Amino acid sequence: MNYCGECGKSVTKKIPQGDNLPRFVCDSCQVVHYHNPKIVAGCIAEWNGRILLCRRAIEPKSGLWTYPAGFMEIGEGTEEAARRETFEEARAKVRITRLHSVLSLPHIGQVYLTFIGELLAEEFAAGEESLDARLFEKADIPWQDLAFPVIKDALRRYIEDIRRGEFGVHVADLPGRLS
Amino acid sequence: MNYCGECGKSVTKKIPQGDNLPRFVCDSCQVVHYHNPKIVAGCIAEWNGRILLCRRAIEPKSGLWTYPAGFMEIGEGTEEAARRETFEEARAKVRITRLHSVLSLPHIGQVYLTFIGELLAEEFAAGEESLDARLFEKADIPWQDLAFPVIKDALRRYIEDIRRGEFGVHVADLPGRLS
Repeated sequence: MNYCGECGKSVTKKIPQGDNLPRFVCDSCQVVHYHNPKIVAGCIAEWNGRILLCRRAIEPKSGLWTYPAGFMEIGEGTEEAARRETFEEARAKVRITRLHSVLSLPHIGQVYLTFIGELLAEEFAAGEESLDARLFEKADIPWQDLAFPVIKDALRRYIEDIRRGEFGVHVADLPGRLS
Repeated sequence: MNYCGECGKSVTKKIPQGDNLPRFVCDSCQVVHYHNPKIVAGCIAEWNGRILLCRRAIEPKSGLWTYPAGFMEIGEGTEEAARRETFEEARAKVRITRLHSVLSLPHIGQVYLTFIGELLAEEFAAGEESLDARLFEKADIPWQDLAFPVIKDALRRYIEDIRRGEFGVHVADLPGRLS
């Protein structure tokens, strides 16, 4: 950040009075510009024991697989965001059944809220930002071709939950070095 | 937003190509400026059946009560943010025991992640942004003097969970008109 979005003058990174972290502060109007973590809302959508994954058509990680997930928008709730992303990326309608995990990525300022959903019908297709959308048996999940470490982590926890028959909400931080 | 934080030139609100929502786009460098919901991390901290509330010393709602909660920062995880806020606002150290609720406020672009914590000792005090910090019996929660509707909603759910002996994670959206 170089300029103030309010008045267009230059900004300086410094610790505002009463604060304890450096922020971008306008040299002219003194507005403090905060940057906070973003929420990525996602959905592992089930259909008769299989789950819906889509293959990314856009960077980063174009060509690799993920469950539908994307940045939550102002004006929507968390479940609504997960349903919207599932429709945008995999043209599928889901009923959200439960929250699966809250996974923080401190190094990039993201928090993944992943829900479990149930497809309303066996209807899906690649959305505009996807190359493909498919239902995978759990044994066939393309572990080596998943787009992001957090997607792999959430899917591993999902599979392990089913194996153990335990379905609590996972809260964890994923370090930057996770591969 | 009036100016581009990257280059300082004017911005126009419009729907970028391939997008479906209006964003602030720079007229000069074409950078798209996204605004997304912010996470408020909070903690209902318990000590022998009582819970820790603090009285706000700052606007909005100065003088009213809340459990410690505040904006999550980039570089931290969700539980860490809740612990930090508990120390900043009530000078108390907690061990987080579980996630209590994920409450979306779509009209103001906030998501409250509230955790349950256990005080490590009966030690607390008003932090810099608080006028007071106190342990309340559940029967004595100052319902009429709580700072925000979302705080009241989360505390109601907390009390009801204890009454019923059920401790799932609450996921809900709170409408703007909630009082």
